[in-house]
Amino acid sequence: METTKQTSMSATKDSSSKIRPSASYSLTLRLKIMNEPGSLGAVTSLIGEMGGDIGAIDIHSIEGPHMIRDLTVNMRDSHHGDELVAALEKKPGVEVIHVSDRTFLMHLGGKISVTNKAPLKTRDDLSMAYTPGVARVCMAIHEDKEKAYTLTIKGNMVAVVTDGSAVLGLGNIGPEAAMPVMEGKAMLFKEFGKVEAFPICLNTQDTEEIITAVKNIAPVFGGINLEDIAAPRCFEIEDRLKREIDIPVFHDDQHGTAVVVLAALINSLKIVKKEMKDLKVIVTGVGAAGVSCSKILLSAGVQNIIGFDTTGPIYEGRTNRMNFMKDWFAEHTNPEKFNGSLHDAMKGADVFLGLSGPGTITAEDVKVMGDDAIVFAMANPTPEIMPEEADPYVRIMATGRSDYPNQINNVLCFPGMFRGALDVRATDITEEMKIAAAHAIANCIAEEELHEDYVIPGVFNTQVAENVAREVARAAIKGGVARKIIADENL
Amino acid sequence: METTKQTSMSATKDSSSKIRPSASYSLTLRLKIMNEPGSLGAVTSLIGEMGGDIGAIDIHSIEGPHMIRDLTVNMRDSHHGDELVAALEKKPGVEVIHVSDRTFLMHLGGKISVTNKAPLKTRDDLSMAYTPGVARVCMAIHEDKEKAYTLTIKGNMVAVVTDGSAVLGLGNIGPEAAMPVMEGKAMLFKEFGKVEAFPICLNTQDTEEIITAVKNIAPVFGGINLEDIAAPRCFEIEDRLKREIDIPVFHDDQHGTAVVVLAALINSLKIVKKEMKDLKVIVTGVGAAGVSCSKILLSAGVQNIIGFDTTGPIYEGRTNRMNFMKDWFAEHTNPEKFNGSLHDAMKGADVFLGLSGPGTITAEDVKVMGDDAIVFAMANPTPEIMPEEADPYVRIMATGRSDYPNQINNVLCFPGMFRGALDVRATDITEEMKIAAAHAIANCIAEEELHEDYVIPGVFNTQVAENVAREVARAAIKGGVARKIIADENL
Repeated sequence: METTKQTSMSATKDSSSKIRPSASYSLTLRLKIMNEPGSLGAVTSLIGEMGGDIGAIDIHSIEGPHMIRDLTVNMRDSHHGDELVAALEKKPGVEVIHVSDRTFLMHLGGKISVTNKAPLKTRDDLSMAYTPGVARVCMAIHEDKEKAYTLTIKGNMVAVVTDGSAVLGLGNIGPEAAMPVMEGKAMLFKEFGKVEAFPICLNTQDTEEIITAVKNIAPVFGGINLEDIAAPRCFEIEDRLKREIDIPVFHDDQHGTAVVVLAALINSLKIVKKEMKDLKVIVTGVGAAGVSCSKILLSAGVQNIIGFDTTGPIYEGRTNRMNFMKDWFAEHTNPEKFNGSLHDAMKGADVFLGLSGPGTITAEDVKVMGDDAIVFAMANPTPEIMPEEADPYVRIMATGRSDYPNQINNVLCFPGMFRGALDVRATDITEEMKIAAAHAIANCIAEEELHEDYVIPGVFNTQVAENVAREVARAAIKGGVARKIIADENL
Repeated sequence: METTKQTSMSATKDSSSKIRPSASYSLTLRLKIMNEPGSLGAVTSLIGEMGGDIGAIDIHSIEGPHMIRDLTVNMRDSHHGDELVAALEKKPGVEVIHVSDRTFLMHLGGKISVTNKAPLKTRDDLSMAYTPGVARVCMAIHEDKEKAYTLTIKGNMVAVVTDGSAVLGLGNIGPEAAMPVMEGKAMLFKEFGKVEAFPICLNTQDTEEIITAVKNIAPVFGGINLEDIAAPRCFEIEDRLKREIDIPVFHDDQHGTAVVVLAALINSLKIVKKEMKDLKVIVTGVGAAGVSCSKILLSAGVQNIIGFDTTGPIYEGRTNRMNFMKDWFAEHTNPEKFNGSLHDAMKGADVFLGLSGPGTITAEDVKVMGDDAIVFAMANPTPEIMPEEADPYVRIMATGRSDYPNQINNVLCFPGMFRGALDVRATDITEEMKIAAAHAIANCIAEEELHEDYVIPGVFNTQVAENVAREVARAAIKGGVARKIIADENL
């Protein structure tokens, strides 16, 4: 899913030919075709030549000498889809009656629903769910606020909060346009963590207003998932909220990515038999994800990280294009104050961690890395280097993509993270809880199953969220941030 | 349901003996009873003597000479329940094993749920509901914000916003304790209007912060239902939000009550054959509901309204205990600047409208009203005068209660009001839309069905929300506040 935010759509277009057709851009074409031998074959051949991947072919109806058929076709993107429709329209004996886009159909009316858990069919139902019965429940919470966790939705409800300023690779598209992503996120919470979530897309990009808004809506929620908020604003918002409200706050773009990267690195090091403290790690991209990944690697024992932004390496003493997070970064990384090119930095490096944009490094850069090189190229949808290019020179390669091995996907972290935090009514998500989550993810793969192409479990591995939740809950109890203590054997 | 807010719980307790047992306070008692002839009868007799209303009697198990039984008993309130349990515990041969409160059981984990409308079981599902497919949907909304109405939950989602400052008759109990009411409201929206709603309980009671919070969360919602916010703050919040955001804002405590009162009055006048312009109306309570009911009556043609607060009548020139809404009220009502007692004001009055508290008027006050007196005593749960006391002297009596005829219940208004507003993507809820709603509710009772005890349809009349939605949508289109025009025959 998302890992690194690309800054414009153009990157996607330029590299479209590298993307395989997928259901994410899937058309249902209603075609009127002459009902004679070979006519359907001519259509399917054309679609194949154009690079389309045909799914279902259904007969809709017969009109005289014509057959009306519905063909579901996966394409690369909307440009690719337009080309196919144009080609079909030019073909003699074929008429395109209707083109429907399955992704848009799925979004009609939104993707989540608020439903009632009890019937409201009789006066008795009404008098228990609403007045006058509800008054006693209100007073019970008024006397003990903690009861909101059991008597309302709070105990299992997370706010997915965005200001729409850094949505996927689309940039600052605003709160309305961010909605489909936040609804999708809510779906993932429900499906993978049995956590319920509701999108809060804020009509402000002012740091103080965002903080105030989240503080004000907090009573309804058991946790806050910050999402797609631009750096460096996201750092202050998260820091302040963590201090000022008593429910866990988690900026998924930072920490979700960091947890899953650490999990993948833990398993990779088992294969290459290296230790965290000995690694030289090169990071491109010093935004939300780049900073938080570097932080968690430092917590895990890495000592030598060199980060690059578009200006060059971050080092103590650099003055141009810095901000408070890059100042922090300069202080805590790059112990030798390296100030050369990215290519030179890559010489002898053990790990490359890309959280920047497509094409940031080339095969020449990978070639100069140390033995058993590890490359996590997480820009989405197009990585810093494509696996095909890097493969000859690296031992372990991971990306954010589902169509290559080793997908580093946030969904491995956030559902279990909040499940665990909510289960124990945590007041915070601590560094220890994140590291526990990374180990829980890594440990879903047994030592004997580990392989260069299998350092991280798949997104549909149902064990992951359960293991993460348990270890996160344990770490919360151990760290003293749990309001509800669950005996270890019941976790 | 709620109409007028009583200011303390004590009112409820004082008048508890007037309240009948109901499912709103329903216990399931697990009793161990000697298994011999007459022992169950002794228990049920005791419950009956104590005023409990027995529902189901189930056998749970048999233990030697004892029978373990579950009895579901409706009681008046928790004090009444405690008395019953104490009496049962004293009774020889009976042991109370467990008492469970059905209303609390119903609230465990909250009353609403966020669910997924599409499956997320395969990579194809993920790639359409989330990245990469979702990006195209985001960009479609980015190019045309209006598309959020079709491609997200916005088009059918209402925020139920409170600051917890005037919850039911419970007063200022805060945002967490208000949650069960707001969840209940969300359930009513769904059940009666097929409108989805989500509770937003704000951790602030500052007018400006509430306004800012609602403006900031507005992108997700198609409408804002303000609920249980104390007067006079509620007036400014609603006014400002109506001007500053482009989705409808509706303070249900004010306007929901006003619409349903007007509906009941429209039908009452058909029975007593009077006209709005000729009425003398006495209003007790000049809070949110009192002001808005008076406003809608003025819009409907009433010319002579005299309002009373706890200090006395509101008249132009009164100086003590006024606020900006009472100033407005003084200017627009009481044309003769009446400044006497409530009893004197009642002399010759056609309508008494109680939006204050229990026991505000007596039979003596009602006796002096004009012919065919109409009394709407809407304090909840205990009206300004009980129907039994008023009945000998009035032609038409209505309350907010479900256990007497003519229940004036907001649920007749708000689900249809928002259904209609959302259907046409209204930017506002206008006075004309409210009056249209009142007529739609009134017209659910045909002229030949009208009766002193049937001036307002029942809450389970499914015609009501449909009729209200249609007339509200029509009024929105006619008034120019609809962003989506629906042909009249399709309404």
